[in-house]
Amino acid sequence: MSRRPLILVTNDDGITAPGIRHLIQIMNTIGDVVVVAPDRPQSGMGHAITLNENLYCDPVVVDQYSEIEEFSCSGTPVDCVKIGTQQILERQPDLLVSGINHGSNASINVMYSGTMSAAVEAGIEGIPAIGFSLLDYSMEADFKPCTKFVKRIALEVLEKGLPPHTVLNVNIPIAEKSSDIKGIKVCRQAKARWQEVFDKRSNPQGRDYYWLSGEFVNQDEGKDTDIEALENNYVSVVPIQFDLTAHTALETIEKWNFNG
Amino acid sequence: MSRRPLILVTNDDGITAPGIRHLIQIMNTIGDVVVVAPDRPQSGMGHAITLNENLYCDPVVVDQYSEIEEFSCSGTPVDCVKIGTQQILERQPDLLVSGINHGSNASINVMYSGTMSAAVEAGIEGIPAIGFSLLDYSMEADFKPCTKFVKRIALEVLEKGLPPHTVLNVNIPIAEKSSDIKGIKVCRQAKARWQEVFDKRSNPQGRDYYWLSGEFVNQDEGKDTDIEALENNYVSVVPIQFDLTAHTALETIEKWNFNG
Repeated sequence: MSRRPLILVTNDDGITAPGIRHLIQIMNTIGDVVVVAPDRPQSGMGHAITLNENLYCDPVVVDQYSEIEEFSCSGTPVDCVKIGTQQILERQPDLLVSGINHGSNASINVMYSGTMSAAVEAGIEGIPAIGFSLLDYSMEADFKPCTKFVKRIALEVLEKGLPPHTVLNVNIPIAEKSSDIKGIKVCRQAKARWQEVFDKRSNPQGRDYYWLSGEFVNQDEGKDTDIEALENNYVSVVPIQFDLTAHTALETIEKWNFNG
Repeated sequence: MSRRPLILVTNDDGITAPGIRHLIQIMNTIGDVVVVAPDRPQSGMGHAITLNENLYCDPVVVDQYSEIEEFSCSGTPVDCVKIGTQQILERQPDLLVSGINHGSNASINVMYSGTMSAAVEAGIEGIPAIGFSLLDYSMEADFKPCTKFVKRIALEVLEKGLPPHTVLNVNIPIAEKSSDIKGIKVCRQAKARWQEVFDKRSNPQGRDYYWLSGEFVNQDEGKDTDIEALENNYVSVVPIQFDLTAHTALETIEKWNFNG
């Protein structure tokens, strides 16, 4: 690539979260960075878009020593990508990166993840895209050990592009230093689910309400999954598609007697 | 099935929307129905879940002549499924149906659709699930021509089950009467995207805001897609999976020099 690549950065933890601040620093060593990110935490927003409300998207200075253009958006991560590419940037970016998420987006978490939905939205628009997550939910998480891997994967994608209709879901294990991480593994999404436990409470007026919480249940014993890679201290890279057609199921269902 | 099937009904247009009221009537002719649906419109919510707010889920009477149990939930369609299966129902339902959505969820719309995300969530929990949508966004849409097809597909799924890790995305063309619809076609998701057009306005204080709107762009000339079926006046049935791994891309990316 002869010109300096244009990189759009977003996330779902909000524009001031340590994860995105770290990602911005890394991307700034690679290309020209523009940030369009949510003005507040948007975890668990999946592929939500804002249809029934106004969308605000204002220039903002988060880091007064930085010259990077940043925009704070009232919408979801997917809104940020749409408004970033259609309204803010003058040309299509060479790369969209989302994250670094505070917490895992491996396995079935990809469905609920605003971080990954932002990457998928960019993929739908034909932009090479990567979602990065660190397996540490804490706002005090240490993102430094991620640096080497994030940069390497971003550079590979910039150099090689991605197969059509594909984005990358990258998850990084917790480590004290990057040398504690064994390397990068390309894998498939583990079959898993959340076993919900609703915490039922009553408000001061006596009306019942619930907090959603739950336990992650891995239903997959395969050695080629993202969960397995992460448990063995590898960075997991899963290529993700947005053609949701269950092609293997087509044949079965075509035999059904729908029209008889 | 010897016992009467237990059917959980939800949607994303809200519990009072004509589409879900019609779906409840149809399901009531097939089995024992329980409704857990959002207390307000939740279109475009994708697979969002409520993590940072209380969830309310109260018994409600929408139709005073009906004896069907109904619950109105403050959360998203996916929240409705989680709370319905884990908190409201005493046993796992035999079927989850979502809809009938006011408007298309064919092709790439499946990504943004709360209706379909509810079905996918049930699928993750191992429950046979179907999302139904009518290609008419109007709140005055006529759902009667859908009846025959909705019932037929639901009965087939109850009888045969679904292939593992699969749910159905059913879209129904607009028709004056059901005989105007040619039949049911099993198809794949058409490759398509939305070309966004942001409508930029200023509020009375002079701050810019945007409305998200756009134009659907079909990028797929295949004859086996849902868009093609609907344009030819067929009901489209697409089996949908939630393993997002792009299996065909795995091999390409495994050859990359990540660890060199």
